[in-house]
Amino acid sequence: MTRRGSIRRMRIHLQNPENDPLFDFTRPMWQAAVARAPDAGGEHDVSIGIAQADFLAAMRDAEALVCDAGVIAALFPCPAPRLKLIFLTNAGLDRLAPFDWLPPGVALMNNRGVHAAKAGEFAIMSILMLANRVPAMVTSQRQGLWHKRLGSVLAGRRLTVVGLGALGAATAGQAARFGMHVTGVRAHPAPHPACARVIGTDALDTVLPETEFVVLACPLTAATHGLMTRRRLESLPSGAGLINIGRGALLDQDALCDLLENEHLSGAVLDVFTPEPLPPGHRVWSTRNLIVSPHVSADDPATYNPHSLDIFLDNVRAWRAGRPLPNRFDIGRGY
Amino acid sequence: MTRRGSIRRMRIHLQNPENDPLFDFTRPMWQAAVARAPDAGGEHDVSIGIAQADFLAAMRDAEALVCDAGVIAALFPCPAPRLKLIFLTNAGLDRLAPFDWLPPGVALMNNRGVHAAKAGEFAIMSILMLANRVPAMVTSQRQGLWHKRLGSVLAGRRLTVVGLGALGAATAGQAARFGMHVTGVRAHPAPHPACARVIGTDALDTVLPETEFVVLACPLTAATHGLMTRRRLESLPSGAGLINIGRGALLDQDALCDLLENEHLSGAVLDVFTPEPLPPGHRVWSTRNLIVSPHVSADDPATYNPHSLDIFLDNVRAWRAGRPLPNRFDIGRGY
Repeated sequence: MTRRGSIRRMRIHLQNPENDPLFDFTRPMWQAAVARAPDAGGEHDVSIGIAQADFLAAMRDAEALVCDAGVIAALFPCPAPRLKLIFLTNAGLDRLAPFDWLPPGVALMNNRGVHAAKAGEFAIMSILMLANRVPAMVTSQRQGLWHKRLGSVLAGRRLTVVGLGALGAATAGQAARFGMHVTGVRAHPAPHPACARVIGTDALDTVLPETEFVVLACPLTAATHGLMTRRRLESLPSGAGLINIGRGALLDQDALCDLLENEHLSGAVLDVFTPEPLPPGHRVWSTRNLIVSPHVSADDPATYNPHSLDIFLDNVRAWRAGRPLPNRFDIGRGY
Repeated sequence: MTRRGSIRRMRIHLQNPENDPLFDFTRPMWQAAVARAPDAGGEHDVSIGIAQADFLAAMRDAEALVCDAGVIAALFPCPAPRLKLIFLTNAGLDRLAPFDWLPPGVALMNNRGVHAAKAGEFAIMSILMLANRVPAMVTSQRQGLWHKRLGSVLAGRRLTVVGLGALGAATAGQAARFGMHVTGVRAHPAPHPACARVIGTDALDTVLPETEFVVLACPLTAATHGLMTRRRLESLPSGAGLINIGRGALLDQDALCDLLENEHLSGAVLDVFTPEPLPPGHRVWSTRNLIVSPHVSADDPATYNPHSLDIFLDNVRAWRAGRPLPNRFDIGRGY
């Protein structure tokens, strides 16, 4: 067993993505994060890279690596003899399954929690957009038609949130503030302060017929792939609306488009799709009463990197104290 | 002087619009409102009409009339010898100016306050849509383009709300809950609990250059007509966004379209226009990064009529007690 408590100074490498300068880590950003968390270590040996050569050089002696899933996909496996921790700046790691690239003995962490504030605001915005019939407004606007469709306030209306991780909990919290009646759905039900009730995924069918708005906010795993089948979408009441901030493959996208076209569903706000990016001419672009958000719901360049480093240093603190890593990724569960 | 206190039983007429069944008053709705406000009088003599003949018959003896501005425009002036109170179910009465149809000695009330909850939700939805770049998403979607534009959370961002009546106050209250820095603008500045500061309309020019989001929520009067001139819109910082839930004529609509097309402004959500309804082919329909909401922001059929009757009965209570009417409309001010 590693005597973690004795590790005062870690060799840490931050690898920036090659083509996404909005999300580059900088040294002042690192220094500011360390200043916010002095007990997680101000004395680490930190390098920041962007080219493949930077990465390969750093892996010779790095003990901790901070990067996004794209870096892993492009550059792993590679020799990394001293590596103990990998912190990925993504929350959903489904694209890296089955994780056979992960060196034995290395602890993998995801960035769950980083998206909560931004995604919660995106989700309540989307619920308000459905309640105010904005997807239909936008469809009418495309046709130059002045067509009034009236909405109602959120208080008392029934929302079902599938997944109560960081995104789902933030969604439920915002909805509760607006007085909605929130039903949470998760694999292993346990009470949640923002939810009037929490049910197991196996009871989903019982709540859909009384759901006005459904938000998909769970990770994509073998258990959730295709969760919202055509039959389940059809079981929503006429006029219901759907939001997906999880992953495109959580639902039957074609069935959703059909049910929007025939107006069984009144609207949808989708941030995730199958495939991504949506190719030109795909039916989703022009499906009526559907808003396409190009997978940006949770991203906030103003706060993302500082918040990611805070979460990483929180895990470094736990590692040094020999405590379980708060963001340890469970390969078996897939989140 | 009328001995109001002695009026135990009033003769009240509710006239429904001829072509808007969503907003019809019904007798069960009246009875429910009276049950909520027993001290405002359960024993009134109430008629409900929809045809012109119903109206003319009721005006022979009605002391109070509840109707919308369309009924006034169509049926007034007419003989109404006992009429003392007119309660209009609209909040903005600009279309009824200069009020020469109002019989002498009759107190006119508007429905200010009825829109607050719904309009506040519409406003915070619109602010979130601007912060998340939804108007640009929708413009890209029309073209079938996967174009990521990233937004940020609302906390700490600078919002200017023009008008602090029911709509503006509800907007400011919602924005404050999201941690925004709210500047209120009104004719006669006085502190407001949801605003970090309140300034007079004459100081508007000083705050626009530091405003990220501006919401127009004031009544249309001689003083506010054309308030947001081209020069003022240009003085907003690059990337700012605008929301109008007041009246179309509060702003230079063509200048707004120009500044959206040249991307000085990043987006707009408009609920009101010049003219209404927007005619087919009008440039507003296809202006980039502009969302057209067809004047529905404040309407909520689920709550509008019950809430209108609550406000009316609140005024009846005041009238019977000889107190000033809370919703008395000031013809001189225009609100």
